Amino acid sequence: MSLENTSVPASFPSRGSILEIEEGREFQPKFDEHGLMPCVTQDAATREILMVGYMNAEALRLTLSTRLAHYWSRSRRKLWRKGEQSGLAQEVVALLVDDDQDTLVLQVRLTGGASCHVGYRSCFFRRFTTLGQGAGNELTFLEVAKVFDPHAVYTTDQHGQPLPPKP
Amino acid sequence: MSLENTSVPASFPSRGSILEIEEGREFQPKFDEHGLMPCVTQDAATREILMVGYMNAEALRLTLSTRLAHYWSRSRRKLWRKGEQSGLAQEVVALLVDDDQDTLVLQVRLTGGASCHVGYRSCFFRRFTTLGQGAGNELTFLEVAKVFDPHAVYTTDQHGQPLPPKP
Repeated sequence: MSLENTSVPASFPSRGSILEIEEGREFQPKFDEHGLMPCVTQDAATREILMVGYMNAEALRLTLSTRLAHYWSRSRRKLWRKGEQSGLAQEVVALLVDDDQDTLVLQVRLTGGASCHVGYRSCFFRRFTTLGQGAGNELTFLEVAKVFDPHAVYTTDQHGQPLPPKP
Repeated sequence: MSLENTSVPASFPSRGSILEIEEGREFQPKFDEHGLMPCVTQDAATREILMVGYMNAEALRLTLSTRLAHYWSRSRRKLWRKGEQSGLAQEVVALLVDDDQDTLVLQVRLTGGASCHVGYRSCFFRRFTTLGQGAGNELTFLEVAKVFDPHAVYTTDQHGQPLPPKP
């Protein structure tokens, strides 16, 4: 039996009543039909949303026990520890769960000042330029410059494919 | 043709190259196999994460044109405007998109001081009590009291079912 299995439960509690799930003090998670839960990751200090990833039960167990963010890559179909290739890890400060316990919020401290594989601090580095009656499809950049050069950090993109050329 | 269709494009641009998607200035969204995009909704001022919902193209178009948050309910299989039953609406301040353009962040101003159908300000009102080697399944409440009584606001829960009894 591995250390992870002795430190956190090997399986999570099963689902109880709606009242237990929505207002109880026990974690009774619902993984989707692919065995995954979406996880919103935000900077613990600034509350900036950095990324949205997915966790299976194993990624969640490892995140809880090691206090380092682990995710399931849907495109590469493998477990990954954030930063294992780039060195840009996420140290866990808190893990929150929503009312119906099918979604997580991970509050983290970045070890490398950035989280997005494109080179920006947050994956959400663009917003719609206009809203309301005049809304179009134009995006405005929120970050003026990249924090790091992805070509210096990664050999492949997050899907395991070669990096696109520099813009 | 309705007002919404004249104010925002009836359909969104199709996907281009990885470089266009990840570093371009045009919205080129990817909806999943159910025609949905996850949307993380946060308080525009405090950056608190309030909820995670899902939008289809119509919900996204209505959110952009009316500046009021609209979602697709996966359990009720219908479009809904946040607050249409409870009065607790979300006014849109900004809409962000991530690197590969399959996830949204909606920054909002709450009209009623709360967002969660259970009665709390945020749906993420609980966190894991302990992390690391001693991590268990116990949750700690982050909000000490409900903002509103759901029995005074809703007749059914978010799945269209009768509300559970008060705890």
